[in-house]
Amino acid sequence: MADPRLVALLDAEGADVLVTADPGLVRMLTGHACEIETGPSPFSLPPIVVAPAAGEPLLVCSADEQPGAAAELYEGFTTGPLTPISGAIAALARALARCGGERIALDGGSISAAVGRSIPQAALAGDDGLRLLGSVKSPDEVAAIEASLRLCEIGQVAAREATGAGATELEVWAATRAAIEHAAGGRCCVLADLVAGPRTGDVGGQPSARSMVPGDVVLCDLVPRLDGIWGDSCATWGVADAPDRARTLHAGAVAGLEAALATLRPGAIVGTVDAAARGAVAMAGFTYPHHTGHGLGFRYHEEPRIVPGATTVLEQGMVVALEPGAYEEGLGVRVEVVAVVTETGHRVLSRHPLGIDREERIRT
Amino acid sequence: MADPRLVALLDAEGADVLVTADPGLVRMLTGHACEIETGPSPFSLPPIVVAPAAGEPLLVCSADEQPGAAAELYEGFTTGPLTPISGAIAALARALARCGGERIALDGGSISAAVGRSIPQAALAGDDGLRLLGSVKSPDEVAAIEASLRLCEIGQVAAREATGAGATELEVWAATRAAIEHAAGGRCCVLADLVAGPRTGDVGGQPSARSMVPGDVVLCDLVPRLDGIWGDSCATWGVADAPDRARTLHAGAVAGLEAALATLRPGAIVGTVDAAARGAVAMAGFTYPHHTGHGLGFRYHEEPRIVPGATTVLEQGMVVALEPGAYEEGLGVRVEVVAVVTETGHRVLSRHPLGIDREERIRT
Repeated sequence: MADPRLVALLDAEGADVLVTADPGLVRMLTGHACEIETGPSPFSLPPIVVAPAAGEPLLVCSADEQPGAAAELYEGFTTGPLTPISGAIAALARALARCGGERIALDGGSISAAVGRSIPQAALAGDDGLRLLGSVKSPDEVAAIEASLRLCEIGQVAAREATGAGATELEVWAATRAAIEHAAGGRCCVLADLVAGPRTGDVGGQPSARSMVPGDVVLCDLVPRLDGIWGDSCATWGVADAPDRARTLHAGAVAGLEAALATLRPGAIVGTVDAAARGAVAMAGFTYPHHTGHGLGFRYHEEPRIVPGATTVLEQGMVVALEPGAYEEGLGVRVEVVAVVTETGHRVLSRHPLGIDREERIRT
Repeated sequence: MADPRLVALLDAEGADVLVTADPGLVRMLTGHACEIETGPSPFSLPPIVVAPAAGEPLLVCSADEQPGAAAELYEGFTTGPLTPISGAIAALARALARCGGERIALDGGSISAAVGRSIPQAALAGDDGLRLLGSVKSPDEVAAIEASLRLCEIGQVAAREATGAGATELEVWAATRAAIEHAAGGRCCVLADLVAGPRTGDVGGQPSARSMVPGDVVLCDLVPRLDGIWGDSCATWGVADAPDRARTLHAGAVAGLEAALATLRPGAIVGTVDAAARGAVAMAGFTYPHHTGHGLGFRYHEEPRIVPGATTVLEQGMVVALEPGAYEEGLGVRVEVVAVVTETGHRVLSRHPLGIDREERIRT
């Protein structure tokens, strides 16, 4: 039985089968979590999924992947000549023959030009449809996001514990990632902002060798991937006692978060969610130069994007991260939680501490 | 002045300009180190380089990249609609117009199908030529590889120090990565095998929650990327006193490494380097199921690949990692060093400890 979200996309595209190598869509359609941490492999192309409107999706990947799903394989790691592109092209042809689809919708952003030229009859699928695919999650997918959010919680608590005057951002980062990977039982891909002091005013950045000093705040946005599914989280706290100005900014950001959550229900237009958050932060005297939020799960930033003027209508099962902030020159605060839209409103899935005081262990 | 390695490739392809998004080739041709750790971005495509036979290479990338090289930019992170594919296509057209090349050689493995369809007149460049591009390094590039090898050394020493009965593989991994990132002054992409005990017989694998016990050996292959350039290193040591059998395997692997190094000079055929290593390991009674070695720098595994029967001829400036091993059921050993081919022979660039005794601090 094909995924009804896929069937709807193929209907809209007038196609029988989707071909994509987007790691998020591969995860959604087959359950396979693609390796993404070390860039292109010399031995294989990123896994492709051939997903028909009727029948089972097929992975097209190298034998190194050991896929759980049905697959057409080509040679991967070898001491012989390397031929991953021709191997992938041949395996894709076999997969398409097995599926029997005539009209192919191609995800032209994720499939390589070499592979694309082997199926010149394929039409490029529209970007907007691909981006919306997977924005509504199944209960199992929500549970997988919750598992990734537990890693966020563990990482956020570890980061608070490692924070202190004299600690470098990189030391806090190392403790944070170690806690996440210990909890996951293996290596995890983690996208992160982890900055302290004046760089918080720049919204975010990579951890550096800078040592923290009393009076700094730490802005920590942790985005780990577990089993191919992303979590997201942000909090901001003082290295020692947070300065009064940071408390004022924090109150503004929290007001934005609460205002956004108050509007989060099926039927709400995302532009109004954005306006609610931005308006509350503005009432406190601040602004933020980024989105209010975004969908989450198959990618770390997906539909529904919660940005000014956006017209997407929230539906039950959509999972969104909300992350308003308050920034000025040299000082910034951001708070973020993830929530799922329910039948009548929403349920917050995040559990990490949000308070400006470092010692806080439970979410305000 | 165009890179003479590029000019030779374009000559062979009958082309005026190369278009590629391979992060290794982008680094080689522009100096720009691409982000690769967190997979596809919703805001931008991977950076593309448009490299003409005459004139300066141009990056085609989003404004988020802040490139050091000349570039055609498109919008990246935004609160507006996301249009990275059409943005990249328009910027690529501007870059091609600036370069004036008529005959385009397209790296079809790295450029997306959507971008590729915007330049249907482009011919796919041959895989073999692209793979050899950059196999001979400049002195500056060798120095950059040496900088990455210093991270290898720091990581290998940290891994030995963290090793002990009761430590988990993940704890050793966390200490290793923390030491590497502390030395680098920021986050690093690191590909790694880090296994202890019976899994060493499987050649490698990701660090797990398994606790080390006396009698285990640790197999640690660290492959960090610094400023877009890869290092590589492997060593194997005992958690406590290494068992006699592990010492025997270790001696076999070291014999293979020494035999390979003894053949490493300009004019040598890589298949003979492979045969020398494999023969010495076989004399000791062992085998290994992988390559003897590979080129290193722009990618973590590139030409010249040192595999059975390969006919590539070594040239001055090629940088190779040599990594013979000796494996049996439940126990494996691998040792690896990186060397540059010099005018008359080679120079070993690696400095990490290779001994089977954990306490060793200097390379044998």
